[in-house]
Amino acid sequence: MSEPIGSAKPETGGIANPPVIILIEPQLGDNIGKAARAMLNCGLVDLRLVRPRDGWPNERATANASGADIVIDNTKVFEREEDALADLNRVYVTTARTRDAIKPVFTPKGLAPEMRSVIGRGEKVGVMFGPERTGVRNEHVAMGDAVVTVPLNPGFTSLNLAQAVLLIGYEWWQAGIDVPDYQLMMADTFPATKDDMERLFVHLENELDASGFFRVPEKRPGMERNIRNIFNRANLTHQEVQTLRGMIVAMRGGKYKP
Amino acid sequence: MSEPIGSAKPETGGIANPPVIILIEPQLGDNIGKAARAMLNCGLVDLRLVRPRDGWPNERATANASGADIVIDNTKVFEREEDALADLNRVYVTTARTRDAIKPVFTPKGLAPEMRSVIGRGEKVGVMFGPERTGVRNEHVAMGDAVVTVPLNPGFTSLNLAQAVLLIGYEWWQAGIDVPDYQLMMADTFPATKDDMERLFVHLENELDASGFFRVPEKRPGMERNIRNIFNRANLTHQEVQTLRGMIVAMRGGKYKP
Repeated sequence: MSEPIGSAKPETGGIANPPVIILIEPQLGDNIGKAARAMLNCGLVDLRLVRPRDGWPNERATANASGADIVIDNTKVFEREEDALADLNRVYVTTARTRDAIKPVFTPKGLAPEMRSVIGRGEKVGVMFGPERTGVRNEHVAMGDAVVTVPLNPGFTSLNLAQAVLLIGYEWWQAGIDVPDYQLMMADTFPATKDDMERLFVHLENELDASGFFRVPEKRPGMERNIRNIFNRANLTHQEVQTLRGMIVAMRGGKYKP
Repeated sequence: MSEPIGSAKPETGGIANPPVIILIEPQLGDNIGKAARAMLNCGLVDLRLVRPRDGWPNERATANASGADIVIDNTKVFEREEDALADLNRVYVTTARTRDAIKPVFTPKGLAPEMRSVIGRGEKVGVMFGPERTGVRNEHVAMGDAVVTVPLNPGFTSLNLAQAVLLIGYEWWQAGIDVPDYQLMMADTFPATKDDMERLFVHLENELDASGFFRVPEKRPGMERNIRNIFNRANLTHQEVQTLRGMIVAMRGGKYKP
């Protein structure tokens, strides 16, 4: 391949050199495939394997990638860690345990802006993952510029390899987008105006009055407030207000024309 | 079981009623097991299955749970969605697609504080996931109070079921802890003081002077600044300063006594 992988392709979210994922001695093709799938979910496309147990290509990996062919087809295999890391400026090593080494420790959430900043000034970065059962060895920690540890349930830290890759990728992708944490899905309609609501309430109160709902006059103001609270809390759309008014008319035996 | 699951047990991070995970018509035991493992990684212990394709218990699920037995052993199976949701006050439905329904839409990051707030006032919540291939149907969206969508690569949104469970759980756990995004792992030592550093620099500069390193006197101040920058940038520990001073002494033919 002469073209550098991920050069501003849309699948990387427009990043020319997104982080490289390096798996050391991965054992199961299932995990490699699921890691590749998780990578593409998060705009990562450059996967490198160091001494994969079952060789490469690997049928189980392809099957479990579920269509992330761009990652599988470009996966590179290395005999030595040094060769897998050679073109990278910074390497971050994932480990569940605290080590004796004196290293910066990032959470995935802290690592994401760090990597974006380093990549932004033109450097190339990679994240290294150890074998399924044992994780990275001390020699791998020594190869890295910093360590990454996912803060999870200390009573059960055994994290699946593909799951660990996903969490790094997830935070990477989140750090590059701007999606509100909460929004109201509106389909083709739009939120009711205060005027829509006021007309609904007057309509409803008039019909409740006419049907004898307000039997104790002094309780009426409080009851009206309660009813208004119910519908205000529902964040109604313009269309839903019309639907509710149609329901009122129908229940009162009439025919609603908006 | 008479005791409610997750009543302030340590595996839930001290939360009496962490979110329930509901899988609708899950097909693969592998995915159920990996979802259970991801749940326990994140302090979630209450798994419910609605019409699992291969019945229950499921050997592949147990194998893939990798020791998350507390989740697998307590998993409950239901024929009807209504029964699986009966004791919950709020249900959030995960879906990759925007629907016609008018619903609040959370990201996993936005959902986590929402669930902690709702649980904090004593309500019980659940998060629903659809079958692997199709995701939830419109009828399931209608059963929920809100929708959850993970913002990921729009060019490849196919997220594995267990991976989706992990992302909900991951954000749930992160919202309950306070781990710095970046810290320096120190082992048994501690950061060098400015006095440690000053003694190192004076020592080094004296020895460089004695060895004829500063050949051009007017360049000396700038070179000294550059050298100080190198070592200041390294965030040295007290022990590392001693090691460096030992190296200086050795290279100058002496024997270092701290």
